[in-house]
Amino acid sequence: MSETSAASTETYSYLGPAGTFTEAALAQVPQAIGQTWHPVNNVGQALDDVVAGRSVAAMIAIENTVEGGVSASQDALATIPNLRIIGEYLVNVNFLLVAKPGTTLADVKVVNAHPVAYAQTHLWLDSNLPNHEHIPASSNVAAAASLFENDLADAAIAPPTITHHHDLAVLAENIGDNPTAQTRFVLVGRGTHLPDPTGSDKTSIIAELPDNTAGRLLEMLEQFATRGVNMSLLESRPIGDELGRYRFVIDLDGHVRDERVADALLGLKRFSPNVIFLGSYPRADKQQISVTPRYDNQAFQDARAWLATLDD
Amino acid sequence: MSETSAASTETYSYLGPAGTFTEAALAQVPQAIGQTWHPVNNVGQALDDVVAGRSVAAMIAIENTVEGGVSASQDALATIPNLRIIGEYLVNVNFLLVAKPGTTLADVKVVNAHPVAYAQTHLWLDSNLPNHEHIPASSNVAAAASLFENDLADAAIAPPTITHHHDLAVLAENIGDNPTAQTRFVLVGRGTHLPDPTGSDKTSIIAELPDNTAGRLLEMLEQFATRGVNMSLLESRPIGDELGRYRFVIDLDGHVRDERVADALLGLKRFSPNVIFLGSYPRADKQQISVTPRYDNQAFQDARAWLATLDD
Amino acid sequence: MSETSAASTETYSYLGPAGTFTEAALAQVPQAIGQTWHPVNNVGQALDDVVAGRSVAAMIAIENTVEGGVSASQDALATIPNLRIIGEYLVNVNFLLVAKPGTTLADVKVVNAHPVAYAQTHLWLDSNLPNHEHIPASSNVAAAASLFENDLADAAIAPPTITHHHDLAVLAENIGDNPTAQTRFVLVGRGTHLPDPTGSDKTSIIAELPDNTAGRLLEMLEQFATRGVNMSLLESRPIGDELGRYRFVIDLDGHVRDERVADALLGLKRFSPNVIFLGSYPRADKQQISVTPRYDNQAFQDARAWLATLDD
Amino acid sequence: MSETSAASTETYSYLGPAGTFTEAALAQVPQAIGQTWHPVNNVGQALDDVVAGRSVAAMIAIENTVEGGVSASQDALATIPNLRIIGEYLVNVNFLLVAKPGTTLADVKVVNAHPVAYAQTHLWLDSNLPNHEHIPASSNVAAAASLFENDLADAAIAPPTITHHHDLAVLAENIGDNPTAQTRFVLVGRGTHLPDPTGSDKTSIIAELPDNTAGRLLEMLEQFATRGVNMSLLESRPIGDELGRYRFVIDLDGHVRDERVADALLGLKRFSPNVIFLGSYPRADKQQISVTPRYDNQAFQDARAWLATLDD
Repeated sequence: MSETSAASTETYSYLGPAGTFTEAALAQVPQAIGQTWHPVNNVGQALDDVVAGRSVAAMIAIENTVEGGVSASQDALATIPNLRIIGEYLVNVNFLLVAKPGTTLADVKVVNAHPVAYAQTHLWLDSNLPNHEHIPASSNVAAAASLFENDLADAAIAPPTITHHHDLAVLAENIGDNPTAQTRFVLVGRGTHLPDPTGSDKTSIIAELPDNTAGRLLEMLEQFATRGVNMSLLESRPIGDELGRYRFVIDLDGHVRDERVADALLGLKRFSPNVIFLGSYPRADKQQISVTPRYDNQAFQDARAWLATLDD
Repeated sequence: MSETSAASTETYSYLGPAGTFTEAALAQVPQAIGQTWHPVNNVGQALDDVVAGRSVAAMIAIENTVEGGVSASQDALATIPNLRIIGEYLVNVNFLLVAKPGTTLADVKVVNAHPVAYAQTHLWLDSNLPNHEHIPASSNVAAAASLFENDLADAAIAPPTITHHHDLAVLAENIGDNPTAQTRFVLVGRGTHLPDPTGSDKTSIIAELPDNTAGRLLEMLEQFATRGVNMSLLESRPIGDELGRYRFVIDLDGHVRDERVADALLGLKRFSPNVIFLGSYPRADKQQISVTPRYDNQAFQDARAWLATLDD
Repeated sequence: MSETSAASTETYSYLGPAGTFTEAALAQVPQAIGQTWHPVNNVGQALDDVVAGRSVAAMIAIENTVEGGVSASQDALATIPNLRIIGEYLVNVNFLLVAKPGTTLADVKVVNAHPVAYAQTHLWLDSNLPNHEHIPASSNVAAAASLFENDLADAAIAPPTITHHHDLAVLAENIGDNPTAQTRFVLVGRGTHLPDPTGSDKTSIIAELPDNTAGRLLEMLEQFATRGVNMSLLESRPIGDELGRYRFVIDLDGHVRDERVADALLGLKRFSPNVIFLGSYPRADKQQISVTPRYDNQAFQDARAWLATLDD
Repeated sequence: MSETSAASTETYSYLGPAGTFTEAALAQVPQAIGQTWHPVNNVGQALDDVVAGRSVAAMIAIENTVEGGVSASQDALATIPNLRIIGEYLVNVNFLLVAKPGTTLADVKVVNAHPVAYAQTHLWLDSNLPNHEHIPASSNVAAAASLFENDLADAAIAPPTITHHHDLAVLAENIGDNPTAQTRFVLVGRGTHLPDPTGSDKTSIIAELPDNTAGRLLEMLEQFATRGVNMSLLESRPIGDELGRYRFVIDLDGHVRDERVADALLGLKRFSPNVIFLGSYPRADKQQISVTPRYDNQAFQDARAWLATLDD
């Protein structure tokens, strides 16, 4: 699990340094255990590693993140070719207030924190350390590490895993404004080898509309509804070439090897001038997808068998 | 073209006797020329002949008819299995007032006419023969034939082809209330050999909804819209087992060998608990179907080729 | 109930003569009891009486009829202005075989019958009177009446009410091919006074599509679905000015005084270049319409109250 | 424009300090000129000021931002009651590399930058300062200000307006990875007084689906399509109470005083168990909305006038 591991290991890129929530997501990947983990500074670098073949996969935040992500990740997946999402992971977003051993809460006057983490712990800090000062850090981990490098701050805001990496006292736990917050991460690789269907899968795509006529989005979504395919995510993102042109980031319930999903993608491909298939992969929440008999694999096979009888 | 022709000919059933509009429709069928034409009394008999193998095909009125049809024909096609529409024909519905040679309009006091033809020529009769009496006939042809059998009527209402069969004087032409009326006929056979696509084809189906939930019809029609398939006919017909249950009689533009039509039928088959395929056949009006590139055969092939690249 | 009743009565037109199924439908109308009933020969005459003010209303067959109707009635309602459907009635279509008293089934060699009734009793006649001959009549009632006028036929096919009008022996009952057949009739008046809502109402409309673009019908039906309005009838009818142009005959569940129906009609009026409102009236089957709370009158009032709060 | 201005002025909150892109957006607001501008640290504080009445309005980033925003802003608007968007503003996102006068590019070894701005200028920095070190700042403006406070960094990344506030040399312009990037901001107030329609307006709403049944989103979008209302933004956001529950953030073309928008909102209100109206306001891009005659105000008035004639 070190960056300087033997040449025979595979490399996984992630937003570093060690101790970030992204690393916690990567720690959930069985095949990454014992391999080389390569910390990078942003989503673009992580995906560049995959495109260039320096890494087999990259873990990036995709939704509701405290470490960048969402728009940047979606836009990167829309514009960098040949990438595939191969797994999805959820990490509970909890924060600790940590300090060097021997420090008490009453001692804390200056807090080192990444600006986003600082914003997310605002309520707790206002109540418990109303007169604190803030020094910004470049990452949640760097905030904690700085306590050993200089004396500018008395405490730092850090993710729960920080205590695996540093000898730190925990002054307070669960100080995030939203105690049930989660960040959703995806593991991104390249190539066309898909994880096998598990019955609890997602298929991610990005698609453009043929033109700006009113009702076009509705027509596109009918491609899913007419095959009984449910969406779990739909977001419009500006394409960026001119104002008012959008692409849609969509997560579908099911795997492209499910007949109804494959058929919906065929319909979408005919409708949309630009469809990007981002992959089919197991859901992080392991929720089984229930399909009405009308749209299960058998229904598709039965319909084809029927059609074949109509015309000799 | 006689019912007692040689055993080597094929038999076509139609609503007789000779001279009906249905016979005029049958006369448009090239492969029926020189074969045996079998006149019957109603749609049920005509289709029975086909089911029992006594005839290779039957010509029946399907829309806007003066000789029965429409509902009876649609319901028969919905309930008798293994029938196929193999051709569509249009006949202009004109009526003549005919009489034995030597008769003038001033001589006409009693008119023999089939009740439906009588209803459709009502305006002309009221204007030109305000004091006439009406004797009903069992068919348009029987009305004319009766002039030679007894002296009860002075004139008869008949289709234009009547003069091919009887030596009659035409007292007035085009006496129908609607001078541009047409009846649409279909030629019905059995088996699964379909006429080849011509670029100007129709596909006829009958389908039931899965249940009576509001919006179900909309869902069914989306199966066509999402494949760019246009409908030229849509009618609800009571199924007959209980009030409020309907089946839908649908004509689609295109042939089942057109990719978009085949795919729409697959979608319909999955959605509907009961789909009856009535055939793909050339349109009577020879209107070419224009298809946007988004839904032409190439688009379907391209989409399949794309899908195949997603998953090895 | 005679045509020569006092001037103070109101006149109702119907397809006569006395004894038809249409008369049986008229007998279900409480306000017609004791008024003048005027028998006419066809749907056009009946509606003409209403338009010209000679009758306050006309009873016409609208669906699945043995006395004409359906297409003729729908097209008449589509083209004659200022008509309104004010009631709906169902009549069981049963047939009797009747003869003069003293006749037995074994005596019957010739049967007098209206051609349509004859077609609908074909199976029974083939089984029970395989060698009979048929003489056509101009109506179901005329067939029975002819037994007293001449000796050409030994029996007649007639509706069950025939025994109210003639002293006839019933040789067989329920001889129709479909023992549960019903005909649906509507009572048509003029003016804009609508029957009050009963909770079991229908609203009938006829509408054209703005153009022939694929998907237009779907768009039109979405006007109903988005208000939770269910359809109980949908039929395409050729407009008649050129091939391929259709109007749609639609029955909606509910009354125009129901908020969701009124709102759907507003949407339809904006969408369609030509909408004909044919009326809101109590359903013959008295089935209560159930409406989800999302689309009941309260939901419409609540939404308006909410909208009013958004903007001062 | 100072925070300590006279009591008679109105206060506007924005993400500070002076010099941020958010301040550049606020500078586009005519009614804010000459008033008090109150810099805050995050979106939550800005909106709190409005809710508490400390400010009349707050400028927040809503899309594609380099200063936080998007998800945080959308979620805040979804959960804090009584807020209204009253204007929309676009700011070009350009970055400068600045230093104290006398510094040259060759002198730059350490760069002070907010982490997000640093990520967005990564390509330029890698090409032009391949060996630089990075010190993080809490905001784009703080990065530049730090040059005067200590000697840790030689240069800073800052927005173009920084030179209005500090005496700085510009070492490089337009160093952002995406030279045409824009951030979209909205001005948020409270109360129900809406800006007047301009013909180029947006209406922002947030709505939940009634349940997770497949096709529900489609049904919701039909509420817009059936009124000819176009969407310019659609995003699903997790509601946060349990996984898989989403609310939808939607921008519609048009103003709630446009008939079609008001009617669509009525439909949406009936359909959705929870609709939040965020306001109708002029578009930043001043693009005129074109409406087909079928859905303009006149069409709505005509339909109501027609409906009123149906029932006396």
